[in-house]
Amino acid sequence: MIKITLPDGTVKEYSKGSTPMDIAKSISEGLARNVISAKFNDTIVETVTPLNEDGTLTLYTWNDDAGKKAFWHSSSHIVAQALEELFPGAKLTIGPAIENGFYYDVDFGEHSVSEKDFPAIEKRALEIARGKHDFKMRPVSKAEALEKYKSQGNEFKVELIENLEDGTITFCDHDTFTDLCRGGHIPNTGIVKAIKILSVAGAYWRGDEKNKQLTRVYGISFPKQKDLTAYLNLLEEAKKRDHRKLGKELELFTFSQKVGQGLPLWLPKGAALRERLEAFLKKAQKKAGYEMVITPHIGQKELYVTSGHYAKYGEDSFQPIHTPKEDEEFLLKPMNCPHHCEIYNARPFSYRELPKRYAEFGTVYRYEQSGELHGLTRVRGFTQDDAHIFCTPEQLDEEFKKVIDLSLYVLNTLGFDNYKAQVSVRDLDNPEKYIGSVENWEKAENAIINAAKEKGLDYVIESGEAAFYGPKLDFMVKDALGRNWQLGTIQVDYNLPERFDLTYKGSDNELHRPVMIHRAPFGSMERFIALLLEHTGGNFPLWLTPEQAIILPVSEKHEKYAEKVLKSLENNEIRALIDNRNETVGKKIREAEMSKTPFMLIVGESEEENNTIAIRKHGGDDLGSITVQDFVDLVTKEINSTLKSF
Amino acid sequence: MIKITLPDGTVKEYSKGSTPMDIAKSISEGLARNVISAKFNDTIVETVTPLNEDGTLTLYTWNDDAGKKAFWHSSSHIVAQALEELFPGAKLTIGPAIENGFYYDVDFGEHSVSEKDFPAIEKRALEIARGKHDFKMRPVSKAEALEKYKSQGNEFKVELIENLEDGTITFCDHDTFTDLCRGGHIPNTGIVKAIKILSVAGAYWRGDEKNKQLTRVYGISFPKQKDLTAYLNLLEEAKKRDHRKLGKELELFTFSQKVGQGLPLWLPKGAALRERLEAFLKKAQKKAGYEMVITPHIGQKELYVTSGHYAKYGEDSFQPIHTPKEDEEFLLKPMNCPHHCEIYNARPFSYRELPKRYAEFGTVYRYEQSGELHGLTRVRGFTQDDAHIFCTPEQLDEEFKKVIDLSLYVLNTLGFDNYKAQVSVRDLDNPEKYIGSVENWEKAENAIINAAKEKGLDYVIESGEAAFYGPKLDFMVKDALGRNWQLGTIQVDYNLPERFDLTYKGSDNELHRPVMIHRAPFGSMERFIALLLEHTGGNFPLWLTPEQAIILPVSEKHEKYAEKVLKSLENNEIRALIDNRNETVGKKIREAEMSKTPFMLIVGESEEENNTIAIRKHGGDDLGSITVQDFVDLVTKEINSTLKSF
Repeated sequence: MIKITLPDGTVKEYSKGSTPMDIAKSISEGLARNVISAKFNDTIVETVTPLNEDGTLTLYTWNDDAGKKAFWHSSSHIVAQALEELFPGAKLTIGPAIENGFYYDVDFGEHSVSEKDFPAIEKRALEIARGKHDFKMRPVSKAEALEKYKSQGNEFKVELIENLEDGTITFCDHDTFTDLCRGGHIPNTGIVKAIKILSVAGAYWRGDEKNKQLTRVYGISFPKQKDLTAYLNLLEEAKKRDHRKLGKELELFTFSQKVGQGLPLWLPKGAALRERLEAFLKKAQKKAGYEMVITPHIGQKELYVTSGHYAKYGEDSFQPIHTPKEDEEFLLKPMNCPHHCEIYNARPFSYRELPKRYAEFGTVYRYEQSGELHGLTRVRGFTQDDAHIFCTPEQLDEEFKKVIDLSLYVLNTLGFDNYKAQVSVRDLDNPEKYIGSVENWEKAENAIINAAKEKGLDYVIESGEAAFYGPKLDFMVKDALGRNWQLGTIQVDYNLPERFDLTYKGSDNELHRPVMIHRAPFGSMERFIALLLEHTGGNFPLWLTPEQAIILPVSEKHEKYAEKVLKSLENNEIRALIDNRNETVGKKIREAEMSKTPFMLIVGESEEENNTIAIRKHGGDDLGSITVQDFVDLVTKEINSTLKSF
Repeated sequence: MIKITLPDGTVKEYSKGSTPMDIAKSISEGLARNVISAKFNDTIVETVTPLNEDGTLTLYTWNDDAGKKAFWHSSSHIVAQALEELFPGAKLTIGPAIENGFYYDVDFGEHSVSEKDFPAIEKRALEIARGKHDFKMRPVSKAEALEKYKSQGNEFKVELIENLEDGTITFCDHDTFTDLCRGGHIPNTGIVKAIKILSVAGAYWRGDEKNKQLTRVYGISFPKQKDLTAYLNLLEEAKKRDHRKLGKELELFTFSQKVGQGLPLWLPKGAALRERLEAFLKKAQKKAGYEMVITPHIGQKELYVTSGHYAKYGEDSFQPIHTPKEDEEFLLKPMNCPHHCEIYNARPFSYRELPKRYAEFGTVYRYEQSGELHGLTRVRGFTQDDAHIFCTPEQLDEEFKKVIDLSLYVLNTLGFDNYKAQVSVRDLDNPEKYIGSVENWEKAENAIINAAKEKGLDYVIESGEAAFYGPKLDFMVKDALGRNWQLGTIQVDYNLPERFDLTYKGSDNELHRPVMIHRAPFGSMERFIALLLEHTGGNFPLWLTPEQAIILPVSEKHEKYAEKVLKSLENNEIRALIDNRNETVGKKIREAEMSKTPFMLIVGESEEENNTIAIRKHGGDDLGSITVQDFVDLVTKEINSTLKSF
């Protein structure tokens, strides 16, 4: 008999050689129907792997990330079989599961595979799946493994096998297909009910551009057809909401080849939107006792040697800036914290003056390879809504709670109301990895966990995920398309106060080390606005949107009245403009819809006569003709319902 | 007879050999008493130089810059004589007039000259001056000149003479003293009534650190003792108002060795002040139809090759930033215009959409040698209140006037009400120096001059002072200490639209080149705040100053009432704080005076009882006890009187 420990801590005895599937069955039939993968003592195993010793077992279904991974990994075997059959002579290389689906890198030889081949591949793969073939692992000798692929002339698999140790090599069989594989499959092909080939792209063997170029076939699969349909709809919607597309349409930002890739230029409407977002946060931060500072975008190399950033990132970053005559070296700042430490160091502080909360919308520059750049989400220059709180260890608890309050205020106001918190703490088995006293770490971790509890957050604790310099809390936010984003990290730091020799005079008249908190509720203005664009599809909250209303005179003779309406709106601080082009109202409405302006105010004969405006909401709702004052009240009410004070 | 043309255009005949002094006497006795130097046909001459041909003559008094220059140059001869007498063996080198006074670089050999020697030098120099010795120029042969200085063992003068052509060499004699000199003296030493030695410093011969180090003796002199007294008072006052000193005392900004010299860190009070200044300008700019944009602080080298800045400044600037793997080069941006051109280029424009006015508080970086750095006035990173207007040539006139309006609004609101305008136009004799059509230049120059006239500016036209790419207008502002500063350049530019191939579609449906205007009313936030600190001595206008009021509770038991007062002030958007330290009210008042807080609100027994506050103005005025509402009204009234809407 062997002792199996389950995730809830219960320990059960099973006969030696029992499989994860046997154990699932012993728990419940329902579970057994859904189990597709398992982990035994930190190793992914098949559901049919016999367990021969005591250990900890986790069972995975489609709803677990590890379950999806096994599902997509297995699907790549199915697709590989289809490719081998459809494109004789194709040489398979590697085919892993990825975040959404899987790919297989293939040397198709004389064949060229394109979009028009996708239906045939999908059809054949589905036929194979429906065969309900078991995935069966078997050990092979190195000689046998080499023999198989040498006979096929597949130099890629041969290279892979040559780097493996004899005795550790396994093949996986299903149907007529065999692949070199370490394992991690679902029980059989029949569980895969829907397969979609998404795209093909070039990829170098082992990612090295000196090697042969292969074809990477991307696919995704699901246990139900309707899951695939939903996924494809999501892709379609995501394409419509792509912030790069919306950013261009709404004239928010642009890029210039001459200025350089990854360096956004904010156009007037985008800059104004950014400024409104910044003003919103500034106002809340002022109430929360933050003070704004301004620091330069460069610093001497020495500054980053002191902070430790140079040793860690120097070689992979933008390289140092030299001066023409003097022996000086500067770096573009990759973060604001070293500068803020120097501001703290500008004068001595007493414990009575802490916490000091220095905030800055600080633009930082970090090198990214050009291939990694993506719209506003991966850029080379971005503005953090940064702040650093310098406090006594005793104040950490209270400060952390205040930062959570501020972060939640930001997320909730901007409509990101679906979030979880992740608390990253030490790996207690490796205390040598961390800087700072055990006492301080305990204090800080407890502070974060207590704060998360007290604020009623839905949180998980991740052991060993803390940075070497302190524990942290992240918000994992789900957007309108169900995608997860990390937003609003709150990080405790014992390292920089040490490195910059920051001190305060305590009540005992001795010098002490303050604790630092790094925090940025938006993260960066660029990334946040990109997420907000995709989350809202460009339909920003009314208080934030570029124009709140557009006035559409029915004809030229109503332009004067339109001007009068505009004046009234401006006096009431409503952002509006007039579309007085010589176009039909129909066309003007269509274009106003495109620009996502929340309100269209149509003014014609009857409106001018009655001193009213005919209101049409973005999307088509007709609110009838009302007075300007009623419209102002309407706007004010809607803004007040979404933009509450901190 | 010769014909002499005077500055007012009148032409008079004099006998050949008449001197400028003769001509001054022929005009008026008063003028003759005051004339101390002259210019004949673009050459500075002595007042006793015989004029032997027709020409244009300008006579200078102490009130002219050229007059002061002759006065201080002559004074350096007097001081040189004193130094030679007091320090036997001292070798004189060169001794020019400078902006304020003069210096003489001397190799004192075994002597070491310091502050304690100044009174003796001043005493002897004044004795010489009182001797009323004429300054007399005489030509000498190169051999004779070399002989004099070789015999003295003065290798410096020998080196100077060796570089001169025989036949062009002159000496100047006065009393027992002779110096190698090109001329430009006042009539005699007696005009100098006051001499002050200001300082000594090290200086290398010919400014080259490989050469011998000399002692530079700085001095200044005046035609009246009271002018010297006034000047020394001014120096004293300037020292008190030094923005570096005030910036530290008022906790506005700091520098850090680690971050790097010339890179200011704005502390909370300074950052808030800067933000108020920026908000003030933003508001006016919004009314004036400007749109804010945001651009990165770096750009590809290519961008500056296109703009022409790289060819012109590349080698003397911060050097290019390289990336780790890719072959890319970036530069810290030294100006915002190339970025704004790329924003303009992001989409096509019709003439109906112009002018576009793009504004940005853009931080730029320019390399300055460390020895040139000075507080906030000479820095390596600064934020320009930059804007670029893109307009049609026909709109230039109107746009220029609007920019003058905005600049004057800024200067007047900030209390710089003593200014002149300088219009820099082409040198008509060298048309090849300028880019752009003659027609456009005429249009632009006329636009500037008409605008200056129409706005009633006190202006001068400087021919040949225009940049190669367009004419400009500068404001020359006199500060409270009588010093002149250039502020608020408005520059027309035909060059960048060409280089960036900027276009708009005209009413003729053809593409045309827009004109650009560069303008920055503050210049840079750093320099402007430095000037404002020195102009106001740190007593900022009430709307701008860090704290508007400080509440001083007489004792601990009035703290609660003080809090209540603070709350009321905050609700009325008055910036205030409470000094609740356990100190006497006397000490608190003294420190509030130091911090230049405009109002001290003292609250004690009687104030709490009567629900009032006792108001004391910065400087000592006692306004008695009034209600908080009355104080709010007082503050509002004062602000409204200085901060008017644009």
